[in-house]
Amino acid sequence: MSYYQTHRENFLEGLKTFLRIPSISTLPENKPDIRKAAEFVRDDLKAAGLHSAELIEGQGNPLVYAEWLGAPGKPTLLFYGHYDVQPPDPLEEWKSPPFEPTVRGEDIFARGASDDKGQVYILMKAVEGFLKTGGRLPVNVKFLIEGEEEVGGEHISAYVASKPARIKADAAVVSDTEMFAPGLPTLCVGLRGIVYLELEVQGAGHDLHSGVYGGAAPNPIQAIAEILCALKDRDGHILIPGFYDRVRPPSPEERAAWARLPFDEEEYKRKEMEVGELTGEPEIPLFERLWARPTLEVHGIRGGFTGEGAKTVIPARATAKISMRLVADQTPDEALARFKAAVSEATPKGVTVQVKLIHGAAPSLVDPTNPFIKSSAEAMGEVFGKETVYIRSGGSIPIVGLFDQHLGMPSVLMGFGLPDDNLHAPNEKFHLPNFYLGIEAAARYLERLGR
Amino acid sequence: MSYYQTHRENFLEGLKTFLRIPSISTLPENKPDIRKAAEFVRDDLKAAGLHSAELIEGQGNPLVYAEWLGAPGKPTLLFYGHYDVQPPDPLEEWKSPPFEPTVRGEDIFARGASDDKGQVYILMKAVEGFLKTGGRLPVNVKFLIEGEEEVGGEHISAYVASKPARIKADAAVVSDTEMFAPGLPTLCVGLRGIVYLELEVQGAGHDLHSGVYGGAAPNPIQAIAEILCALKDRDGHILIPGFYDRVRPPSPEERAAWARLPFDEEEYKRKEMEVGELTGEPEIPLFERLWARPTLEVHGIRGGFTGEGAKTVIPARATAKISMRLVADQTPDEALARFKAAVSEATPKGVTVQVKLIHGAAPSLVDPTNPFIKSSAEAMGEVFGKETVYIRSGGSIPIVGLFDQHLGMPSVLMGFGLPDDNLHAPNEKFHLPNFYLGIEAAARYLERLGR
Repeated sequence: MSYYQTHRENFLEGLKTFLRIPSISTLPENKPDIRKAAEFVRDDLKAAGLHSAELIEGQGNPLVYAEWLGAPGKPTLLFYGHYDVQPPDPLEEWKSPPFEPTVRGEDIFARGASDDKGQVYILMKAVEGFLKTGGRLPVNVKFLIEGEEEVGGEHISAYVASKPARIKADAAVVSDTEMFAPGLPTLCVGLRGIVYLELEVQGAGHDLHSGVYGGAAPNPIQAIAEILCALKDRDGHILIPGFYDRVRPPSPEERAAWARLPFDEEEYKRKEMEVGELTGEPEIPLFERLWARPTLEVHGIRGGFTGEGAKTVIPARATAKISMRLVADQTPDEALARFKAAVSEATPKGVTVQVKLIHGAAPSLVDPTNPFIKSSAEAMGEVFGKETVYIRSGGSIPIVGLFDQHLGMPSVLMGFGLPDDNLHAPNEKFHLPNFYLGIEAAARYLERLGR
Repeated sequence: MSYYQTHRENFLEGLKTFLRIPSISTLPENKPDIRKAAEFVRDDLKAAGLHSAELIEGQGNPLVYAEWLGAPGKPTLLFYGHYDVQPPDPLEEWKSPPFEPTVRGEDIFARGASDDKGQVYILMKAVEGFLKTGGRLPVNVKFLIEGEEEVGGEHISAYVASKPARIKADAAVVSDTEMFAPGLPTLCVGLRGIVYLELEVQGAGHDLHSGVYGGAAPNPIQAIAEILCALKDRDGHILIPGFYDRVRPPSPEERAAWARLPFDEEEYKRKEMEVGELTGEPEIPLFERLWARPTLEVHGIRGGFTGEGAKTVIPARATAKISMRLVADQTPDEALARFKAAVSEATPKGVTVQVKLIHGAAPSLVDPTNPFIKSSAEAMGEVFGKETVYIRSGGSIPIVGLFDQHLGMPSVLMGFGLPDDNLHAPNEKFHLPNFYLGIEAAARYLERLGR
C-alpha cells in the first residue's frame, strides 16, 4: 500500500486546508464557513473518484453525500463524520491561532484537528488510495458527512429518518473517538447520550439595589445555586428521583477488561486534565464513572454584573447551560421529564424557572462480537502492531443511536484521537502518526471486508 | 425664600447638564467623564459664591472641595455627596437613554438622578440661594463631593484620614438616602456597612470536554453553587459561623416606630420590586430584615459557555461577585475573616478558591437626640408639612462611618429620594417636587442652625 506512504505530505497539506476553515456550527456568524467546509469535503470526495458527490440541503447545515457502489455482492459501509467544530474560546489560551493549523513535534494543533476533521479526512484518504491506484474499492462505500454534530445534528436526524434506503448499509464506520493510549488500537463499543438544556431564572421584574432590597429580594443566581445543589450532591450523586433506575451496569467481563487497561492515574490527573484531584461518585471506579454512569454538569452560567470592579445589584434574571450525559438504557425524554420535575421541586420561592431543551441524543451500546466490529479490530491491530482493546466513550455521538434505531445498523467506532487531544478546549491537536496509520488501518479494514 | 421658587427652571436645567455626564466610576473608559463631572461641581460652587473651590487630586478620582466660612461663632456643616454613578446596564431596559435626562410627569429619568447627583445638587442650590440673595450664609459650610462612592471611596477615605482639620465640622450633611414615602419627610439614622468580594474558582488547568471527563472533572461553577449554598440557607439565614454574634438588635421603641410606618406590602411587592414573593429570614419583620440584619448576596457570576446554542465544556474557572451587608456592631475586617474561613471550609475537592476584597465599609448608627439631627427633622417637617419619621437604610454610605470614626462627627442623612427611584437599576429617576422642596428644606435647615 505504498500510496498511503508516499502521499503523506499531500494528506497533511489537505488536512491543513480543511482545518483553516472556521466551521463553528454554534455561532451564526460562521454560517459562510460551514458552507465552505461542506464544499471542501464534497470537492475532495469528487476528486478522489467517488460518485454522486453532492451537498444535501435542508433545514440547517448541508450534509455531504458521495458513494461508490461498484462492488456488487460485497458489503456496503456508510462512512460518517462531521465537518463542523466547537467554538475556540477562550482564545487567549491557544498557543497558536485555532484556525491556523500548526505542526509542533508530531502533533498538528487546530480546532477540529481531532474532533472531527482529522478523523473524517482519514476515511476520505483511505478511499482515495484505492481509487487512485486501482480505480475501484474492495467494498461498497457511502459517505455521509454532517455539519451540525456539535449542535445536535437536526438535519442529519431528519434525513436519516426520511431517506433510510439511500444511506442504508451493512455497518456504519464512525471515526470520531479516541485510542485509549498512544499506539494502542481501540474500538469504542458504547457512547453516552445527552440532554442539553438552558435554565432561565427570573426573580424581580427589574434589577434591584442590594442595599435597599437585600433581605427581601429573590436572587436568581442564588436560586440557580440552590437548584444545582438540589440536583447533585457534593460527591457527584445525581439527586433527581428515579434518575438511575434504567442505568445498565457493565458486565463483570467488561469491568475486568477495563481494570486491565494500561493507565497511570497520576499522569492522567497532572498532565491530561491538569487537576489536583479527581471528583465524582467515590464508590465507582474511574472508567465506570466516565463511560457507564450518567452525569449532570453545568457548562456555563451568566447573571448580574461581571465587569471590572463592583456593582451592588440583585439581578432580575440569570441563566445556566446544563447537560445530563445518559447511559444505556436511559432515554432523553425520560431524563428531561425527571429533570423538569426535580427543578420544579427545587425552585426556591420568589423566582420562576424555565427549562429549555437545546438538544438530546440517546446513548448506545454495540455488540463486540459483530463481524464488522471484529474485522475492524483485526485491521487496526495489524497496522498498529498491537491487540485492539474494547472500551467505551463518555461522549455522545447522536448519529450512532439513530443509525441503530432507524436503520438497524451497527456502528464501528474506529477512532484515532488521543486522550490529551484537548477536544472542545484550547490547543486541540491530532497526533500525526495516528493520522497516517489511521488511513492505512481504514484501508486495511476495507481490504479485509472485501475478501 | 422666593429665590428658591423663582429659580426652579434654572435648577432643573443645571441638573440636566450634570446628569448628561456619564460619570461611571466602575468603568475605566469613563475616566474623562469623571473629571468632567468633578469640574462641573467645582465650577457651579464657584459660581454660587463659595470660596477655595478646587479639585483635590490624588490616587483615584478627584474630590471637589469648596467652603464659605464667614459666620464666626456659628456652627460649621460639611456637605457631602458624590458625583459618580453606577453603570447603566442592562441598557435595553431603559425607556429613555440613561444619560439623556428626560422629564416624564413629575419625575426626571437618568442614571444618577436620585443617586446622587440630584441630591448633591439640592445642597449646592440651597447654598446658592443665600449667597445670591444676601451675600452670606447663616452658618459656615464646607463641601466635599467625591467621585468614587460607587466603587468604595478610597480617595476620600485617605483624604479624611490625612486632613482631618480641613474638613472637620460640627456635623456632616449627607443627601444620599430616601424618604420613606412620597411627601413624608424622613431622617435616616442607620446604614448598613458592606464587604464586597470577588470569588475566583479554578478547577482543571484548561477547559475539559464534558463527555470525555464528565464524572471525574471538578466543575468550578458547581463549586460556586456549593459554596453559595453552604454560606446561606434557603430561608436566607447566613450560615457563616459566628456571623451574627455582633448584630445589635433594634430597640423595642425603634421596632414599634417601624411597625407604625405607612406601608402597603402588596404595592411594595407588585409595583416597586415587581416580585411575586418577598424572601429572606421568615421569622424577622421586613424592615428589620432590610435595615437591621446583615445579608449575603451574589451580584454576578460568570463561567463557561454562555453564548447562543450549546457547548459541552467543563470550564476551568468561574468567578462570582458577592457582598455582605453589615449592621452595627459588625466590622468589615471580622466579616471578611469569617467569610474566608467559611469559604475555605465549603470548598469542594478538586478546585481552589481565591477571595479578593474589592471594598469594605463599616455600618453606622447615629443618635436621634443629637441637636443637628433634630433641627433637620424640624426643617424638613416645616417644608413638607408633616412630622419627620426616623428610619434606617439598608444601603451603605462608607463615608458616614469614616466621619464618625475619624472626626467624631455625626452625619445628618437628609434624603429626598423615593423608594421607587430604581437606584442601581434601569430607569433611575428623581421626583421633581422632592428636588424643589429638598432645596427649600436644606435652606430652612441652615437658617434654623444659624439662629
